[in-house]
Amino acid sequence: MQKKSVKFNKVAIVGTGLIGGSLGLALKKKRIAKRIVGFARHNRTLSLAKKIGAIDIGSRDLKTAQDADLIVLATPVSAIISTAKQLSRIVKKDVIVTDVGSTKKEIVFKLEKIFTNYIGSHPLAGSQKSGVEHSCRDIFKDTICLLTPTAKTKKQTLRIITRLWKELGTRVVLISPREHDKIIAFVSHLPHLLAFALMDLIPRNYLRFAASGLKDTTRIAASGAHLWQDIFITNRDEILYSLRRFNRLLKNFEKLLLKKDLNRLRNLMVRAKEKRDSLR
Amino acid sequence: MQKKSVKFNKVAIVGTGLIGGSLGLALKKKRIAKRIVGFARHNRTLSLAKKIGAIDIGSRDLKTAQDADLIVLATPVSAIISTAKQLSRIVKKDVIVTDVGSTKKEIVFKLEKIFTNYIGSHPLAGSQKSGVEHSCRDIFKDTICLLTPTAKTKKQTLRIITRLWKELGTRVVLISPREHDKIIAFVSHLPHLLAFALMDLIPRNYLRFAASGLKDTTRIAASGAHLWQDIFITNRDEILYSLRRFNRLLKNFEKLLLKKDLNRLRNLMVRAKEKRDSLR
Repeated sequence: MQKKSVKFNKVAIVGTGLIGGSLGLALKKKRIAKRIVGFARHNRTLSLAKKIGAIDIGSRDLKTAQDADLIVLATPVSAIISTAKQLSRIVKKDVIVTDVGSTKKEIVFKLEKIFTNYIGSHPLAGSQKSGVEHSCRDIFKDTICLLTPTAKTKKQTLRIITRLWKELGTRVVLISPREHDKIIAFVSHLPHLLAFALMDLIPRNYLRFAASGLKDTTRIAASGAHLWQDIFITNRDEILYSLRRFNRLLKNFEKLLLKKDLNRLRNLMVRAKEKRDSLR
Repeated sequence: MQKKSVKFNKVAIVGTGLIGGSLGLALKKKRIAKRIVGFARHNRTLSLAKKIGAIDIGSRDLKTAQDADLIVLATPVSAIISTAKQLSRIVKKDVIVTDVGSTKKEIVFKLEKIFTNYIGSHPLAGSQKSGVEHSCRDIFKDTICLLTPTAKTKKQTLRIITRLWKELGTRVVLISPREHDKIIAFVSHLPHLLAFALMDLIPRNYLRFAASGLKDTTRIAASGAHLWQDIFITNRDEILYSLRRFNRLLKNFEKLLLKKDLNRLRNLMVRAKEKRDSLR
């Protein structure tokens, strides 16, 4: 028996960038939202979001969200936290709220105190590009969406938000905010840090010798600095932990090179290749 | 006026892997070689290479190369050096020789003592995949091919090999073996080392949370360990130098995180993004 699909009268998307815009398009396509109001700092963003059909109404005044029955916070992490406080004085008491921030511990800790029906989301979708102009309604399809319920999360909220992400084509995985930040530090935040550092390192006049290897390795270094400073700061401790672990591995690699220890070098690479091959 | 195109009666490709196989296909397509003899350790590789049309004759005996007028060494780096010695006792005195190894200083130093008409090549083409079964005749199109002439290189050899690579669609850039190894350490060897180390680091049970960022960053960690151990050893000093420079950058990144120095963090990322955006 098919579950009744989830519907909202008015969805407020706060932050109509790549993810917010794509979400708008996807909600429209799936007829999940009757009306979508989008919020951004700049009128240009809002008219662009409206033009591509990601939102119905654009607003720079959070009051427009007062009668929304779903709020999705899709700004950079620090703005998620500051906007949530402002919104709490405006919106309906029982409004369902989620966010799509890339770190969860700090956000969830704060937002679940502010909203009664809140749960954190982290769709593992997106790219190095930013801005509503790169929105794509299929961006969530066949990706994973992490939801981070806590002891405070209402079952009803979890159920609705789970159904929402499933309808957008994601595979929903539940995980605690703490585990989320620990794991994502390794599989996303540290790789970004390394890509930024590698691009910073390479002398400009060497760049003409770059082939596809370097290009793929550093694609994510073209991500927005404003987005990533928030991520690095709000998940600082886990990122530092993964960075130190990585440094120890590099030291070991250096030692093997110095000793020309072919066996151990090869073992390391065979292990790495085998793990990489298992990634689909 | 168009230059006379380069032609060979018999080309010997030693090592019919991804690059050797692709070279065979490309030489055939452009009608640059009348006959191609391919060498490999395993009969299976040779019959596959023949089946896809990368070579005309397969052989496991280097003597079959004795009447070749062009030899391309396309094995892993250490085998390039050992095979060259054996070949020198077999081939014609004036045979033109090149190799496609990813490190150049050690190879060129040795091979230009062995062959009169030798020049080193490094086509910046390929992928994490290996084996003749992944060969593609267009693999060199629109890539850069680095040639590493020295004071010993004959003009005639440089001219012929330059023309050869140009006809395969590459942009030829001349560079000294020393500069080659220094630059490629930064733009290729270090990125590979980091990808191997990153895959080695990430706990296996975290891999299901990997999104496209990690996948792109570590694609090259699926490269063959046998190929890369040779590269790491023959360009050890330059790789160690780039690794130490990278380590210093990571230490700085760590310090900025610890101090929550948002300005400097953002500057670093903006700089990295701007450089990455300049990569085409």
